[in-house]
Amino acid sequence: MSALNLHPDRLFPADETTRAIARRLYQEVKGLPIVSPHGHTDPSWFADNQPFGNPADLLIKPDHYVFRMLYSLGVSLPSLGVPSKSGIAVEQDPKKIWRLFADHYWAFRGTPSRMWLDYVFKEVFELDQVLSGDTADAYYERINSYLQKPEFLPRSLMENFNIEYLATTESPLDDLRHHKKIRESGWGGGVITAYRPDPVVDPDFEGFAANVAKLGDITGEDTSKWAGYLAALMNRREYFKSFGATSTDHGHPTATTADLSHAECEALFAKALAGQCSAAEAELFRGQMLTEMAGMSIEDGLVMQIHPGSFRNHNPNVFRDFGRDKGADIPSQTEYVNALKPLLDKYGNDTRLSIIVFTLDETVYSRELAPLAGHYPVLKLGPSWWFHDSPEGMRRFREQITETAGFYNTVGFNDDTRAFLSIPARHDVARRMDCNFLARLVAEHRLPEDEAREVAIDLTYKLVKQAYKLD
Amino acid sequence: MSALNLHPDRLFPADETTRAIARRLYQEVKGLPIVSPHGHTDPSWFADNQPFGNPADLLIKPDHYVFRMLYSLGVSLPSLGVPSKSGIAVEQDPKKIWRLFADHYWAFRGTPSRMWLDYVFKEVFELDQVLSGDTADAYYERINSYLQKPEFLPRSLMENFNIEYLATTESPLDDLRHHKKIRESGWGGGVITAYRPDPVVDPDFEGFAANVAKLGDITGEDTSKWAGYLAALMNRREYFKSFGATSTDHGHPTATTADLSHAECEALFAKALAGQCSAAEAELFRGQMLTEMAGMSIEDGLVMQIHPGSFRNHNPNVFRDFGRDKGADIPSQTEYVNALKPLLDKYGNDTRLSIIVFTLDETVYSRELAPLAGHYPVLKLGPSWWFHDSPEGMRRFREQITETAGFYNTVGFNDDTRAFLSIPARHDVARRMDCNFLARLVAEHRLPEDEAREVAIDLTYKLVKQAYKLD
Amino acid sequence: MSALNLHPDRLFPADETTRAIARRLYQEVKGLPIVSPHGHTDPSWFADNQPFGNPADLLIKPDHYVFRMLYSLGVSLPSLGVPSKSGIAVEQDPKKIWRLFADHYWAFRGTPSRMWLDYVFKEVFELDQVLSGDTADAYYERINSYLQKPEFLPRSLMENFNIEYLATTESPLDDLRHHKKIRESGWGGGVITAYRPDPVVDPDFEGFAANVAKLGDITGEDTSKWAGYLAALMNRREYFKSFGATSTDHGHPTATTADLSHAECEALFAKALAGQCSAAEAELFRGQMLTEMAGMSIEDGLVMQIHPGSFRNHNPNVFRDFGRDKGADIPSQTEYVNALKPLLDKYGNDTRLSIIVFTLDETVYSRELAPLAGHYPVLKLGPSWWFHDSPEGMRRFREQITETAGFYNTVGFNDDTRAFLSIPARHDVARRMDCNFLARLVAEHRLPEDEAREVAIDLTYKLVKQAYKLD
Repeated sequence: MSALNLHPDRLFPADETTRAIARRLYQEVKGLPIVSPHGHTDPSWFADNQPFGNPADLLIKPDHYVFRMLYSLGVSLPSLGVPSKSGIAVEQDPKKIWRLFADHYWAFRGTPSRMWLDYVFKEVFELDQVLSGDTADAYYERINSYLQKPEFLPRSLMENFNIEYLATTESPLDDLRHHKKIRESGWGGGVITAYRPDPVVDPDFEGFAANVAKLGDITGEDTSKWAGYLAALMNRREYFKSFGATSTDHGHPTATTADLSHAECEALFAKALAGQCSAAEAELFRGQMLTEMAGMSIEDGLVMQIHPGSFRNHNPNVFRDFGRDKGADIPSQTEYVNALKPLLDKYGNDTRLSIIVFTLDETVYSRELAPLAGHYPVLKLGPSWWFHDSPEGMRRFREQITETAGFYNTVGFNDDTRAFLSIPARHDVARRMDCNFLARLVAEHRLPEDEAREVAIDLTYKLVKQAYKLD
Repeated sequence: MSALNLHPDRLFPADETTRAIARRLYQEVKGLPIVSPHGHTDPSWFADNQPFGNPADLLIKPDHYVFRMLYSLGVSLPSLGVPSKSGIAVEQDPKKIWRLFADHYWAFRGTPSRMWLDYVFKEVFELDQVLSGDTADAYYERINSYLQKPEFLPRSLMENFNIEYLATTESPLDDLRHHKKIRESGWGGGVITAYRPDPVVDPDFEGFAANVAKLGDITGEDTSKWAGYLAALMNRREYFKSFGATSTDHGHPTATTADLSHAECEALFAKALAGQCSAAEAELFRGQMLTEMAGMSIEDGLVMQIHPGSFRNHNPNVFRDFGRDKGADIPSQTEYVNALKPLLDKYGNDTRLSIIVFTLDETVYSRELAPLAGHYPVLKLGPSWWFHDSPEGMRRFREQITETAGFYNTVGFNDDTRAFLSIPARHDVARRMDCNFLARLVAEHRLPEDEAREVAIDLTYKLVKQAYKLD
Repeated sequence: MSALNLHPDRLFPADETTRAIARRLYQEVKGLPIVSPHGHTDPSWFADNQPFGNPADLLIKPDHYVFRMLYSLGVSLPSLGVPSKSGIAVEQDPKKIWRLFADHYWAFRGTPSRMWLDYVFKEVFELDQVLSGDTADAYYERINSYLQKPEFLPRSLMENFNIEYLATTESPLDDLRHHKKIRESGWGGGVITAYRPDPVVDPDFEGFAANVAKLGDITGEDTSKWAGYLAALMNRREYFKSFGATSTDHGHPTATTADLSHAECEALFAKALAGQCSAAEAELFRGQMLTEMAGMSIEDGLVMQIHPGSFRNHNPNVFRDFGRDKGADIPSQTEYVNALKPLLDKYGNDTRLSIIVFTLDETVYSRELAPLAGHYPVLKLGPSWWFHDSPEGMRRFREQITETAGFYNTVGFNDDTRAFLSIPARHDVARRMDCNFLARLVAEHRLPEDEAREVAIDLTYKLVKQAYKLD
């Protein structure tokens, strides 16, 4: 059994000169409120404010970062209690699941999951030995008992975590009942929604036509026609805005955009509703919808986020037996220079529009995204995402982006997580890595320290609120 | 107001051991003459030797690095005085433009522009506060008054900058009158030309057919025929050589080369002149012309430079209103292994030929360019270019190139700039970053310091003169 | 003449804190036996145990790392004694060849070849001046005389190098006579074979149809039919296993896999035998054979290695005059996410199967390979390969792989070399670079030192034996 330590200098460069600068910069930002403008936490937690479940339910079963690693090393998903949609029997005993996880904790060495989990174990659950088979049961008991305390209820955690804003992500078909309940409760916790229209703008989405019909029912628009469909989408944007939404989000396979004529749009939409789109036509339709969304954003001011490039559900057996979001999404090469051009040709110079672009393909940082964002007024760069939400990923992001796009075409950190407890850990990693990068610039006399301090605060807090219009 | 400092150790690693080595290496190279074998300064400056204009004319309006960043953050091009070709009214007051720039100087934090500008402000204009809204007017006055001094005339600056050679870049249609005037003046300043035939070898270039006809007029060759066209191109190469040219330069969208039959060349050339090339045919013609140019280089000894991979004028509105070179050129993915093969199959083993290859796509450094240059005798690698002409870009270049291609398949630094005043700053960054890289090798006992010293001198001076045949 | 030193801290970070950690970690692994599970040494060396030839024969003529660099700088292959298959006269005097090499030793500054060679010169041949024109003759004499000593016979070197396992690579058509002779000699030196079926599974391989016919002769199967062909391949796998093979190896141009119907396989195989495959069909056949090999591996337990992405023999003139493996193989872009899908759809979740994937395209580390290996139980990642078997290449590998795939989806080091003397040098570089990376994690408080120590031992020894089933 080894002691579990969170060293105060963790993630800072070993060189003493640089480390001292990083420490000073970090002092300026470590206490700033967390602004989490994009993520996937469950709004019912904050609406209902009930205790979280047991350690396995809370920390293992829903965390695809965790079970994808164990699965890759031969641990079966049923043994980790991951629910099966095809009726495979899965482990029910949360203590057994927890022990299996603990027995493999070595697998996470060198990964961000290890850092986030250690942070949660130490800071939230006050554990002080490293997790292992030996400490598994003690961990389980400690976490389980803490989860029953009132200060571990979702709203209390949110307050203790010093989270000023927390955006969830919902489909236009969602009635936002949890957000309504939060609002009606009078709790001013800063939970807001974001508009994610994939289910009604992607012809390949399961149940697309039915979804579009349902959109018509909800809004009273005739969504069997292009004009009514657009009106319905706009209508829901307004509804989302009334629950605090300041942004939309688009998770397409590629960054393709299009700018078709009205007649082409109508014809393509009819095909999509009829389920007759080829793969290329579905892609074109999604691309057109990004441009439509940009046009709506100019009208209503919602900030667009584009998250392209994930090959979803790459493993058909895992998808069949366990469904979506089971660690089987794989990035693929993603092109932006030609893909975004139709949208940019139309709206790229309109300063009322703001589009935050993300990537899973790091090769585009210096080649495509920084030059695009370093020219177009509408483009800003989202932080290093998903697989790259990690110390090395963040370092590469800043090293490859900054010289062309600067700091002020970026938007601060997104945790983008469904793992609520990990939010402070993730923001802490981002703050430390930004200070790490800035400290190197200062130590190498590339930026005066007073300016670095200002940048650190901007990246942690000011730019986030500004980019997501949360002021 | 903060003090403006150029720390003597800037860009050196913070680690004291490594920094001390870098300092020693830099001492060996900092005083060496600048050899600038590729760039875009205006030869009329040196021909006429008149004072430069006001600060905005000199440092903002022509520098797309500067106004692209401001534009990306919402500052309009007219407000920066960027001339419009479509008749948009632009700001005429250079002081207002300068103030607007100064108010946004924070935007350049972490960029090479900031380093270059600070160097110019401190070393050339002897300013000692950081530029900001507060110091804008004082800056303007200081720069404006210095520009009237005799030691700020172009030729004096060139001498004071210790520039041994400075290559400009001209089209074969250029009569080189400025170069002639320089020569006739008796001033031995080392200004030479370089041959950039894009306007007469790229069917997509504005006015291609007219350009080719003009080429015929100039040379007395029948450029309506393939044979006469080649003879005319060769003729102009000789003319350029008589004004000191030792190199050609080719700025194609891709690295495509071709090796067509004589009959195919004739047919394709006829199509090109008739304006009937498809996009693929235009690409093929440009590719064929690279191979033709290589053949001519074997005859006349001019070194070839290939600068592929820029998607020019990506923003149609900016192009319409402000024209070329307005910060809207975006790199795109660029392939070399298949693209260069036709040319290499024909000439790749001919040691009389020397081709310097550049890229805007850093992913090819370790995968394609270093292996190619580490095998083919004709290939050498140009330095990190344009968006990658930066400390991190230079570091990635050396880290990803050296282990396969070594140092001796590279050619030293190119500033590639039209910003004359920034030339010493840019070469200083390159020298420091090479010493930085070498110092790490020495500190990690991967290269003895005496050999590193030799390499530093080679990279700064000897390899440049050798690669560009400037001895 | 400069002293030749192998500094005990070479390749460790300069920062004293980190270096001290690296030193401690390295102490734990430097003495561990070498396990070399994949390479290209000649088994006849160990079968016959005769002295190696002269310095040029041993260290220059067979080492494409060495002569590709000299060739790229204008040194001709004949002058280096590289044998010509087209009858070009080549230098016969090994002393002259050695001197030519020595005169250009500066060309290797900053390359891994320099590190490996210096290690061999110092550790094996006890030389203590840096190689140069001045020391060329002394080097020649020293190496030449040492090679005659009994302790420089292949088996003695293998023992002195502390090599526990050394895998060679043979075609299924090979009778493994050298391996038989080794076995019959009673020498227990750990030399084993590996199964590389490219000559009989790649329709583009020289003599494919004849090779398949020969495969039939050897095995007594009717290899003119698909079923007999598969049986023959399986038969040879068993034979290879009887000589210690635990793995297969596949050197295809891409990572394409396929999963065709039985009828399609039969038809495609018939076309391949008839020499009538288009390029796409040859690619498809190779892809199908990877899936077939995976199926066989599930049966017989051989670990699969896939080494895709080399454009072989890129230089036709060098190929014509000097043949394969002459430094003219160039990596090209290589895609895995779609390419591996057919195989993974069929076998990706079968924990009996183990596939080790390599790449020459570093852009896929973080984007494709780490996410794939961090999910699929059958996938593991081979170490940085060929051009990337270098300090910077190893650093990039760990930095870009670890955060998503962890350490335990990797398999330790492969030297992959035909240069027997360089094996200890190469493993030493890998051990140092792993300790370097781990030391940074420890110094930045990202991993406790006791766990880093365990990881270092795992990467050096345990994971290799486990991944290649050498226990």
